[in-house]
Amino acid sequence: MSTSKGDVEMTSDSSGIAQKRHRPLKRTPSTSVPPMPWFGIDIGGTLTKLVYFEPTDLDEYVESPDEQIREKTIHRYLTTNKAYGETGVRDVNLELSGVRINDRKGIIHFIRFPTDRMLNFVRLVKEKGFAQMSSTVCATGGGAEKYAKVAEEELGMYFHKSEEMRSLIKGIEFVAQNNLDECYYYDNPLSKDYKKVIWRWSSARCSTTDHIHEDKKCPPPEGLQYPYIVCNIGSGVSVVLVRSHNDFKRVSGSSIGGGFFQGLCFWLCGCETFEEAIELATKGDNKKVDKLVGDIYGTDYDAAGLPSDVIAASFGKVFNKEDAKNIKKEDLASAALVTTANNIGSIALNIANHHGIERIVFAGNFLRVNPIAARLLAHAMNFWSKGTKKALFLIHEGYFGAVGCLDKLVDVTNTRRMEKNSKSTTPSQASSSAGEDKEGSIEGGENVVIKDDEEMKTPRD
Amino acid sequence: MSTSKGDVEMTSDSSGIAQKRHRPLKRTPSTSVPPMPWFGIDIGGTLTKLVYFEPTDLDEYVESPDEQIREKTIHRYLTTNKAYGETGVRDVNLELSGVRINDRKGIIHFIRFPTDRMLNFVRLVKEKGFAQMSSTVCATGGGAEKYAKVAEEELGMYFHKSEEMRSLIKGIEFVAQNNLDECYYYDNPLSKDYKKVIWRWSSARCSTTDHIHEDKKCPPPEGLQYPYIVCNIGSGVSVVLVRSHNDFKRVSGSSIGGGFFQGLCFWLCGCETFEEAIELATKGDNKKVDKLVGDIYGTDYDAAGLPSDVIAASFGKVFNKEDAKNIKKEDLASAALVTTANNIGSIALNIANHHGIERIVFAGNFLRVNPIAARLLAHAMNFWSKGTKKALFLIHEGYFGAVGCLDKLVDVTNTRRMEKNSKSTTPSQASSSAGEDKEGSIEGGENVVIKDDEEMKTPRD
Repeated sequence: MSTSKGDVEMTSDSSGIAQKRHRPLKRTPSTSVPPMPWFGIDIGGTLTKLVYFEPTDLDEYVESPDEQIREKTIHRYLTTNKAYGETGVRDVNLELSGVRINDRKGIIHFIRFPTDRMLNFVRLVKEKGFAQMSSTVCATGGGAEKYAKVAEEELGMYFHKSEEMRSLIKGIEFVAQNNLDECYYYDNPLSKDYKKVIWRWSSARCSTTDHIHEDKKCPPPEGLQYPYIVCNIGSGVSVVLVRSHNDFKRVSGSSIGGGFFQGLCFWLCGCETFEEAIELATKGDNKKVDKLVGDIYGTDYDAAGLPSDVIAASFGKVFNKEDAKNIKKEDLASAALVTTANNIGSIALNIANHHGIERIVFAGNFLRVNPIAARLLAHAMNFWSKGTKKALFLIHEGYFGAVGCLDKLVDVTNTRRMEKNSKSTTPSQASSSAGEDKEGSIEGGENVVIKDDEEMKTPRD
Repeated sequence: MSTSKGDVEMTSDSSGIAQKRHRPLKRTPSTSVPPMPWFGIDIGGTLTKLVYFEPTDLDEYVESPDEQIREKTIHRYLTTNKAYGETGVRDVNLELSGVRINDRKGIIHFIRFPTDRMLNFVRLVKEKGFAQMSSTVCATGGGAEKYAKVAEEELGMYFHKSEEMRSLIKGIEFVAQNNLDECYYYDNPLSKDYKKVIWRWSSARCSTTDHIHEDKKCPPPEGLQYPYIVCNIGSGVSVVLVRSHNDFKRVSGSSIGGGFFQGLCFWLCGCETFEEAIELATKGDNKKVDKLVGDIYGTDYDAAGLPSDVIAASFGKVFNKEDAKNIKKEDLASAALVTTANNIGSIALNIANHHGIERIVFAGNFLRVNPIAARLLAHAMNFWSKGTKKALFLIHEGYFGAVGCLDKLVDVTNTRRMEKNSKSTTPSQASSSAGEDKEGSIEGGENVVIKDDEEMKTPRD
């Protein structure tokens, strides 16, 4: 168990972490709670997303000198830089403060780097001597499996692994609860006068169910509104049906997602980054490359309800060098973007129709710096559902898995507690106590303060 | 009304059309029946499909000298050539004999050419003087709308237009009834020992419903088994739900079809024809270009039921020149083919699941000379449905719309008859008589002989 070092050392802290310096009562964190600092890492097919939880309640807790030093070192490195190694980037604008995880209050920082630099990242962590420091890493995404061995062998770093879809949903619900302005939708998405409208999840607007509520002059239901669909667009696409807090299932997916778009833009246009591909696509005109219903029919295809400007065949207009003369690479990038967005929209809508669901939340890093795709999706949902379904978007786009896997901290805490309790109580008691502790999870709709071991309840100097 | 020219002229016919030369009784076709020769044309986004009905019952009918001459001229041109103009091709192997349309017996010939040569085709028809001859052209597909004006103004040729999905379904059911070996499926589609197995539609094998029938020792139901899904892959993709003979609806679609594949193969590999693209794709390995679940996870993604060899991100493996060094254009063509086939399979399966349907019939010219795509689809249906759904394929791949729109002949006949009858009967009688005549349609499950005007029932020399 760590012991308190009192206020003296805390006041000498120049890192700005301590908020209330002279509060006399301090708690020593339970030894069941994994040591700080806490990291969540989502190692995806293309991008790795890393979140770092910076505690801001240091004046309330007694920490060991070890913990203090490593927190300070890592904190300084991460928060004084915006770029790490050659390719790591911190999304400063996404920083989320005042959040509470596993009974601690703090700030979540958001960092990303390409997964193919994972080994460089491991090297960086080793060089900077962070390996021993970051003793608690929660991990998800395919790479959590793939790189677990390297992390353990090279860094002695153990991944607390969390299932990918579970992390995604936990992360979305946690962030949406902690950031009132997280969620938005588009009004008139394809017009010049389009508007981004903040949608407060808890006020449950934007569904036909809600309109019915309004008509009947009933107040709309409060809190997260189930069921909803999450369409997560990373390298590939996963569609998850969320029926309630703990009831969700991956019901569909597609290999035509961000990886497809970036790959095509590399092969067709030579783009070596996602940003470059998006920039090119923004300047192009897919209609020069795609075959439209109007190109085939000369007009609308009324019997099937297809207007003339709907794409009949993506990339279906040009098959020879003569016709290719007028096509710029911008047009090809645009066609790649529109193909991707439309196909995803169609899959999401089919699933929403199948399950009779009105809320479709789009997430994932394909939507980063990519308002065109978001607006295409918004338009597609609105148009094909005749206004009954609405596309919703989230500001923290691709970071939900990394945030959500921090939920694993609670499991780890519970497991440690069970192990400890099992020495002093009967197994059934231990199990029951662990079950109660589960309330502190980041799953909860409320920011419930975790029940901790007795030792935590003891005030200290 | 035309008059009989007797047997003398028929025996001098060297074209091989007449089958029974000495039958003494001949009928004069009703003036309500549109004059021969009959053409069905399906003008698609990329390919135009033309079917020509060659009557073989000439010894039973009296035809005008005009009709005889134009039939003979067109017949000779079409059946002595396998190629027309620069790009027209006749699929001799698909020739369908012994079919009965609108009370006439004959052979259907199958011809195709690229739709972008439509104006060349119009010129050819004009040059050869076929325009006045082919007085009955039934047309469908987007181009039936787009080119109607040109056909009328340039050739004086009027299109009897038929809706595209209606033509498709009528055509499939007509051909499947007339060709017992039309339909097939694959056993072990992705293994080296795969087998193509002929599936007699009328014996209704290959569905779990049928297995239940077998288990219960009940005979399987006879005839066409409803409901089924048709997934037609031309330039774009249409998914049609067929509940019964006259109850079908386009329920989904995709812009990722044959046009997408051919377009990508042009842009990525420089292929200027579909055949070239298929040949290249056959030699390549998509796994060098696509990112697999195993590339991300290092293993299967068990929680989502995704084996390691499933594609997580099409074209998602290579984003830079260094990695691109080992990739051949064959690999890119292969990835384009696999992307297309898998996406279509996924859409078809979602729809089949949504509607609880076990039979998925794949048609359209994307499947021409393209067994890889068919086998991928067969595998996908089998794998993702855990064997409960089976992909079925049809030998006449892309020609069903062109065949099915010949159904319009019956409508035209009925309309003409109504107009004629309305001069001699009350309107209500005319309507009722037209309704009865409808039996002769090619829609019927049986080859019902059409009831004709009184004049047809009069034997003549």
